[in-house]
Amino acid sequence: MNAAILENKIKSYVKDVPDFPNKGIIFKDITPILKTIPLVDEITDAFASRYELFKIDKIAGIEARGFLFGMPLSVKMKVPFIPIRKKGKLPCDTVRSSYNLEYGATTVEMHKDALNENENVLIVDDVLATGGTVNASVDIIKQLKCRAVAAAFVLELSFLNGIENIKDKSVDIFSLAKYR
Amino acid sequence: MNAAILENKIKSYVKDVPDFPNKGIIFKDITPILKTIPLVDEITDAFASRYELFKIDKIAGIEARGFLFGMPLSVKMKVPFIPIRKKGKLPCDTVRSSYNLEYGATTVEMHKDALNENENVLIVDDVLATGGTVNASVDIIKQLKCRAVAAAFVLELSFLNGIENIKDKSVDIFSLAKYR
Repeated sequence: MNAAILENKIKSYVKDVPDFPNKGIIFKDITPILKTIPLVDEITDAFASRYELFKIDKIAGIEARGFLFGMPLSVKMKVPFIPIRKKGKLPCDTVRSSYNLEYGATTVEMHKDALNENENVLIVDDVLATGGTVNASVDIIKQLKCRAVAAAFVLELSFLNGIENIKDKSVDIFSLAKYR
Repeated sequence: MNAAILENKIKSYVKDVPDFPNKGIIFKDITPILKTIPLVDEITDAFASRYELFKIDKIAGIEARGFLFGMPLSVKMKVPFIPIRKKGKLPCDTVRSSYNLEYGATTVEMHKDALNENENVLIVDDVLATGGTVNASVDIIKQLKCRAVAAAFVLELSFLNGIENIKDKSVDIFSLAKYR
């Protein structure tokens, strides 16, 4: 599917929710996308096509909405899936990194045995906002002596300057629908 | 794939983690399943085959690990996906229900517009433990004037008597691997 057509289709299913989770923030609700057959397939296919030649060893989905788009991509690309979760959710030994969110601070973790040394990791999440989650995820992946080669998002809130805030400029950042 | 072979394969990838999240609990870590190609496909295929004739209108995945198995099933069955989330995570108007977990109490929510009246819903989660989440999910679905026709789990901790604890006996309960 043509990129501009897919972008418009995605945007037509995203719902703006004012004052969530805090006053003044307009939240982008992606749940209507999940109800729309075959839009999830089209999103998955667009990602799979982009990353076909990236030699991705693992797909890391960020809790919780990154799971929703990361898992279908893992299945489609036949690339193992790794969850990046909020602190305290993963039961085995973890590596972790903290960051400031648009609203509040948080810590994310990955199992230490999630990656083998020197692997190429694709990060997947629903929305690129300030880039804080990406920085923490890239940090975790580096702690495990691997490379975050790319990060994929369904939506990008360009006005929050996420791309500029991502410290490691070698990470390929890609989103299917941009809000400027 | 033969059901007994799939059960053994699943169990061989589940990791027992003692004393997580609390002392005395042996946690079943399913993250190794997600790393195993093509085990996720085999799980998805087993569910899809079972529910083919159930006339499922929506698949409701329970946050967060229910997302991991619910989304591939949604894609495979071409049935819209609905997230059931912890309180405060969904941005629009919700229905909710509270329950006691094996460790602590919690509330789950679903968007009010997630279902249309009179739909058949399949609940998906990774583990059936005490059945509390299922009861809350069935309750939410009924609040929206729909039917929880079935609930699917990768694992079932039979020794916690989840099936007996599920109040609505009309819900078809199914798991791929049982721990007795």
